Amino acid sequence: MSKPKNDPGEFEVIKNILSPLAAAMPGSLGLTDDAALLDLQAGEQLVLTKDAMVAGVHFFANDPPEYIAKKLLRTNLSDLAAMGAKPLGYLLATAWTDACDEQWIKNFANGLKEDQELFQIGLLGGDTVKTTGPLTLSLTALGTVKIGKALRRNGAKVGDLLYVSGTLGDSALGLQSLLGQLPPVQQDHTEYLQNRYYLPQPRLNLAQSLVDLATSCLDISDGLLADMGHVCTQSNVGAIIHRNRIPLSKAASSLPEKGKEFWDSIVGGGDDYELAFTVPAAKKTQVENLAKDAGEIITHIGEMTLGDAPVFVDEIGQEIHLPKTGWTHF
Amino acid sequence: MSKPKNDPGEFEVIKNILSPLAAAMPGSLGLTDDAALLDLQAGEQLVLTKDAMVAGVHFFANDPPEYIAKKLLRTNLSDLAAMGAKPLGYLLATAWTDACDEQWIKNFANGLKEDQELFQIGLLGGDTVKTTGPLTLSLTALGTVKIGKALRRNGAKVGDLLYVSGTLGDSALGLQSLLGQLPPVQQDHTEYLQNRYYLPQPRLNLAQSLVDLATSCLDISDGLLADMGHVCTQSNVGAIIHRNRIPLSKAASSLPEKGKEFWDSIVGGGDDYELAFTVPAAKKTQVENLAKDAGEIITHIGEMTLGDAPVFVDEIGQEIHLPKTGWTHF
Repeated sequence: MSKPKNDPGEFEVIKNILSPLAAAMPGSLGLTDDAALLDLQAGEQLVLTKDAMVAGVHFFANDPPEYIAKKLLRTNLSDLAAMGAKPLGYLLATAWTDACDEQWIKNFANGLKEDQELFQIGLLGGDTVKTTGPLTLSLTALGTVKIGKALRRNGAKVGDLLYVSGTLGDSALGLQSLLGQLPPVQQDHTEYLQNRYYLPQPRLNLAQSLVDLATSCLDISDGLLADMGHVCTQSNVGAIIHRNRIPLSKAASSLPEKGKEFWDSIVGGGDDYELAFTVPAAKKTQVENLAKDAGEIITHIGEMTLGDAPVFVDEIGQEIHLPKTGWTHF
Repeated sequence: MSKPKNDPGEFEVIKNILSPLAAAMPGSLGLTDDAALLDLQAGEQLVLTKDAMVAGVHFFANDPPEYIAKKLLRTNLSDLAAMGAKPLGYLLATAWTDACDEQWIKNFANGLKEDQELFQIGLLGGDTVKTTGPLTLSLTALGTVKIGKALRRNGAKVGDLLYVSGTLGDSALGLQSLLGQLPPVQQDHTEYLQNRYYLPQPRLNLAQSLVDLATSCLDISDGLLADMGHVCTQSNVGAIIHRNRIPLSKAASSLPEKGKEFWDSIVGGGDDYELAFTVPAAKKTQVENLAKDAGEIITHIGEMTLGDAPVFVDEIGQEIHLPKTGWTHF
């Protein structure tokens, strides 16, 4: 037990670096009290999620601190998006290492600041401690939905259409690129894929517009097939997912080999933070127009079926067995 | 980056060990969705706090897992108590080490289960990851207060009376005892002090009954003098704290030497998780009767004054200078 005495570190960091992040949140009480306060409007429900990240497992210890901060925040915002929620604010717990000096922490806070402005949220509270192990971060994100309107994983019905947002697999390929495991591609493709790994794009606006349309929704964090497994289990349905409909980025498409390893990365790699959601077949035009109007790309990749698990099929409807079925973080 | 593949660990732990902790919380959605849902009653405000704990800093890695779980939960509940809040539930993030096998995690969960029943709360959500470093835990506790009724640190007025709950310094002496740094005392005193270190008692009922009486309140985590420093800063007042009024347990009183080191532990050691609160002098009888009716021990230890910091004085009013002014955890 090595509690340092009279180390101004914690209070100074809170006062000088973290408090400004809380300035726009009256409920943070300027980070000067034991807890934060939050009001809900009538008819609203609170949506809460909490993720943890450890250096060497969820990010590289020498990643730019701004990117680490943004990934931490955005993966949590993606969980809020999965429920159709509008984000409000967040609490942050950080276990810094000795390598996290004042400049590092300032850069980390600057990443949060930029994303706070982008997503219109603020810091509500939290805790800062020191660790002798890898940098460990935890964030609790708070949002709201209209009561009873939250998107869930358990509402998909046989016959519903399965959609995903954006393109899949970019983040997994970006990680492989950073690890030197990807065949050479054009420099701008490399940058695109690595950027997709570093900076998830939580699909908050799209998700909020789906609350009256989608029968189920989640964000893809463990890989499309693994996550659709959760939807199938929770909804007591199966799914057919067509390989030739999976949306690929130009960068992913540019890879020379598209064998099983490639498709493993695309539908099993995880960290996509795209939405997978189901809508009744009768709503096909409505949901596609809605996405078009909102400037969001969505792709119809399959259908919900009788069954209890997703089936990934090729052009002639034959099942494709992939060695991996999704990352687990534990 | 070492994401294990197809490791059933995370899902199995969530399903078999953590889900039962969420059973009584409908908003947890059985831990099957991306986020949890929470409703507030009209006229209520949400109170949020989040603390982190690291093995070797905030607890011993070989402490019984039940105790680690309860300390984590109770320190957060103590923050809710400091605001006068009624606890609702919590989110939990755990970075397990390899030493946390299934039995360890079951014991940890059992500690949470016992305290959930004691404090009438439940698990709402969270995250489980692995770490190569020390066991790292973070908990977000949620409670409610009537809108505008939360106890704050910034309302103390000159002339207010300063009270504390329970007895001070036991936890710090308990830690010294565990470290073999305490002079020998009776076995039952040793057990008492160590127990006070392991199992904080969040003063939730007392705090909730103070919302219409106290002008300021906090829970003592960094030591009485350091924490009263925060109250003085936030309230723009000073405080006189009388050494001979500080409530001591029988175990603490039994220590043979009561020099500066002893008093350092009592008012600077921290981890008390007792309340320090101020009330207008006119409410003295009312607050003391209220505590008596509730079976809670409170002690009038000083007064708020003109000034900007607490002054610790001896029997003849002379200031006592102590080398330590409170633990910081960073």
